[in-house]
Amino acid sequence: MKEIFRHSQLYTFLLYCSGKGLEKKVLDCGAGGPMPPLAIFSNLGYETHGVELDKKQIELAKGFEEKYGLNLNILEGNMLALPFEDELFGFAYSYNSIFHMSKNDVNKSIKEINRVLKKGGLAFINFASTQDNRATSGKKVRDGEYLQFEHGKEILHSFYSEFEAEKHFEENGFDIIYKEVRKRIGLRKDGGKVTLGYIDYIVEKK
Amino acid sequence: MKEIFRHSQLYTFLLYCSGKGLEKKVLDCGAGGPMPPLAIFSNLGYETHGVELDKKQIELAKGFEEKYGLNLNILEGNMLALPFEDELFGFAYSYNSIFHMSKNDVNKSIKEINRVLKKGGLAFINFASTQDNRATSGKKVRDGEYLQFEHGKEILHSFYSEFEAEKHFEENGFDIIYKEVRKRIGLRKDGGKVTLGYIDYIVEKK
Repeated sequence: MKEIFRHSQLYTFLLYCSGKGLEKKVLDCGAGGPMPPLAIFSNLGYETHGVELDKKQIELAKGFEEKYGLNLNILEGNMLALPFEDELFGFAYSYNSIFHMSKNDVNKSIKEINRVLKKGGLAFINFASTQDNRATSGKKVRDGEYLQFEHGKEILHSFYSEFEAEKHFEENGFDIIYKEVRKRIGLRKDGGKVTLGYIDYIVEKK
Repeated sequence: MKEIFRHSQLYTFLLYCSGKGLEKKVLDCGAGGPMPPLAIFSNLGYETHGVELDKKQIELAKGFEEKYGLNLNILEGNMLALPFEDELFGFAYSYNSIFHMSKNDVNKSIKEINRVLKKGGLAFINFASTQDNRATSGKKVRDGEYLQFEHGKEILHSFYSEFEAEKHFEENGFDIIYKEVRKRIGLRKDGGKVTLGYIDYIVEKK
């Protein structure tokens, strides 16, 4: 497989995972799309599982799996109610996905991720930040929650200030072990500029 | 090769490189060490070259190359005077390396990197930022330049504020096309905290 994945932060997560003595079994929440990052884990010998809300994104992932002869086990499902028993996984992540929900639902999903992880298991979860130039675009629903057009549909986006997401981990049985606050600036030759803001966490189940 | 590289930002650079129609020939400035990132490029079909000041780091890279049957072409050399003719490379990078020099020498090195790149060629260069908790440790030499102990030796470190490095690119024939400002926080269970600050640039030769 000679693909270049755009999910570069997951390589940092993989470094943390490889340092744990846990069974190599990983869950992706929001796992679909044309280049499913579970393939990186599969390539390194992990048993992979994923849930994805959107049937079209599951089909796109299937195309990739067929091309490379992989079965990544991506099911239709919702991270608000994960279709897995307690403490099944050593590792779980949700990459550029969880912030497409209300902050209330984010909290429920993080509780679910905690439930399916083994004690000492690791999760990578990232958030869109209020540094993002889209942070107050669209129709305001609640503080830091806006309805924005994406792929022709109105979709809820939640944006977090620098320390705001930490309550989700504190309330749901996680220790934060790593955090990266990132501001990504794309500059065009015409002088145009796009700023994307993210906050990434690696957390450990207590 | 089933290694996990810690140089996750280089995957973003690779995405930009793969979008250019240039010959796949890449130079690493500061290329040695036990897990030389040129291997990622080699694995994707790039012709690789590297320079490295430190003989010991070249030996460590050789161990890796022998293990995987690779020849990454890492020479002893200094990025202040690159041992290559003009416009030889489509791509060049210096990862966590250039800030071990004075700001004056950083400027000279970036001029050198520009010289060996083809027009339209891309470079990835990252800087330690003043957000780093080591930013004013050690013995001050000049503004933002401190002598700090690393591996038992006093080594110069340069730290940059958010927009400070841009002059190096403006003065030396580069357009900035991408920038990421990162603050990495490692949290220990005893409550201890380490903050690392970086600013990454992808620039294009005019």
